[in-house]
Amino acid sequence: MSKKGSFLFYGSGGSMGVPVVGCDCEVCSSDSPCNKRLRPSGLLTVGDHKLLVDCGPDFREQALRYDLRHLDGVLLTHTHYDHIGGIDELRIFFFRQEEPLPCLLSRSSLKELQTRLHYMFLPRAHGNNIPVQLDFQLIPEARGEIEFRGVPLRYMTYRQGGMLVNGYRVGNFSYVTDISEYPDTIFEDLEGTETLVVSALRHTPSHVHFTVDEAVTFARKVGAKRTYFNHISHELDHEETNRTLPRDIQLAYDGLTIPIVI
Amino acid sequence: MSKKGSFLFYGSGGSMGVPVVGCDCEVCSSDSPCNKRLRPSGLLTVGDHKLLVDCGPDFREQALRYDLRHLDGVLLTHTHYDHIGGIDELRIFFFRQEEPLPCLLSRSSLKELQTRLHYMFLPRAHGNNIPVQLDFQLIPEARGEIEFRGVPLRYMTYRQGGMLVNGYRVGNFSYVTDISEYPDTIFEDLEGTETLVVSALRHTPSHVHFTVDEAVTFARKVGAKRTYFNHISHELDHEETNRTLPRDIQLAYDGLTIPIVI
Repeated sequence: MSKKGSFLFYGSGGSMGVPVVGCDCEVCSSDSPCNKRLRPSGLLTVGDHKLLVDCGPDFREQALRYDLRHLDGVLLTHTHYDHIGGIDELRIFFFRQEEPLPCLLSRSSLKELQTRLHYMFLPRAHGNNIPVQLDFQLIPEARGEIEFRGVPLRYMTYRQGGMLVNGYRVGNFSYVTDISEYPDTIFEDLEGTETLVVSALRHTPSHVHFTVDEAVTFARKVGAKRTYFNHISHELDHEETNRTLPRDIQLAYDGLTIPIVI
Repeated sequence: MSKKGSFLFYGSGGSMGVPVVGCDCEVCSSDSPCNKRLRPSGLLTVGDHKLLVDCGPDFREQALRYDLRHLDGVLLTHTHYDHIGGIDELRIFFFRQEEPLPCLLSRSSLKELQTRLHYMFLPRAHGNNIPVQLDFQLIPEARGEIEFRGVPLRYMTYRQGGMLVNGYRVGNFSYVTDISEYPDTIFEDLEGTETLVVSALRHTPSHVHFTVDEAVTFARKVGAKRTYFNHISHELDHEETNRTLPRDIQLAYDGLTIPIVI
């Protein structure tokens, strides 16, 4: 029997968010709520389970805005600041739930966290601050299927610049952020996806992100019914960009909720 | 000739901010703007120079709120997440100002940043993201005087749990956050301070912070004309706590600006 779920965009912006600090461009000065973009993250709800997808530097603001009170786990795509900058903030859930929070990630992501957040891995010294405790579950291979907190997931691996990044698929929904180089097998992994999220930074080329055109080409190869772009820079006005895009491919915005079927 | 300056509280809250995510207590539910506390940080303005004191996880929000467009340097007190969680966000100033941003800190803080933000110290690989570049200036000893970006500063060292922390003094203003153990020489360093900022977490004891009573005792020993508490948890309501405090010792709040004479 199929389960219902949803994905709520906690943030649809690029690494600096929109508005960019100190920027007077039209998008950064715009009053449209769709042009206010926190860093990329989202809440995946499957049945009663709430899974956070990435935990960027806006996590506290996002958790307050959407009144997040419980988390069953965290999926990490990769370890750039805009995707893990808020992991320390998860300690409120660890304090409240009184057990380490399950976290799914790749071996390379774990290795990076062991350096960046080394204090999470130390035995706690008396009198020191209490860091968050995560219960890490490793993705075993580059692509495959896994169950995490009772939720069946498909995962895949691609690259952004020098970094390995993971995409995730839950039922008819796939989330593929921060992609620049990928193996052709990704289209097998994404086959049958009905709602795709893929990153599209801007129109001008980037070494580490798809442009809008590159993301459209990728989306067409996946062939989902609906595609939403995330990781959007201040170069893209929401309304104006959406008018130039095909109807089935649109920019996401903070607060957008997508239904999922698992 | 004396110079004028100011200190603007970017954040007066403790490590989790106020409201705390998912908390329904009276302070977290309060509508009073003085009970909305971002993480501890502030902008020190001396003449035309703007120096950021700590760069916590709310830095982007703080920079947008107070329309920060230029920075001359950053003073770090220590490397807990609530004081350095936003360092990556400084890259917008590096991009715009096109030179590494000067940063004053202790040798132990630098060592910690070299681990936590190791990618800042690597030669940049083609195709990778561009991290912020900081121009580090080391505090040479445990206490002393130094000039940073043309601003004469006195610095001191104390401890919070296992971590070394620096306090700073500029003219008649001293900023002493995250203090739990300290050498008696601190009172020599702070002698003549007219406006003191010192951390006071809550009424209940903490291994790593002063309680309100401990902070009052410390403030009385310093003997400043005015003392403001920062790093305030959700256990302290702004108005209610201020009523019980002496008139010359009060809780700070986000957005409070204090005049300084150098």
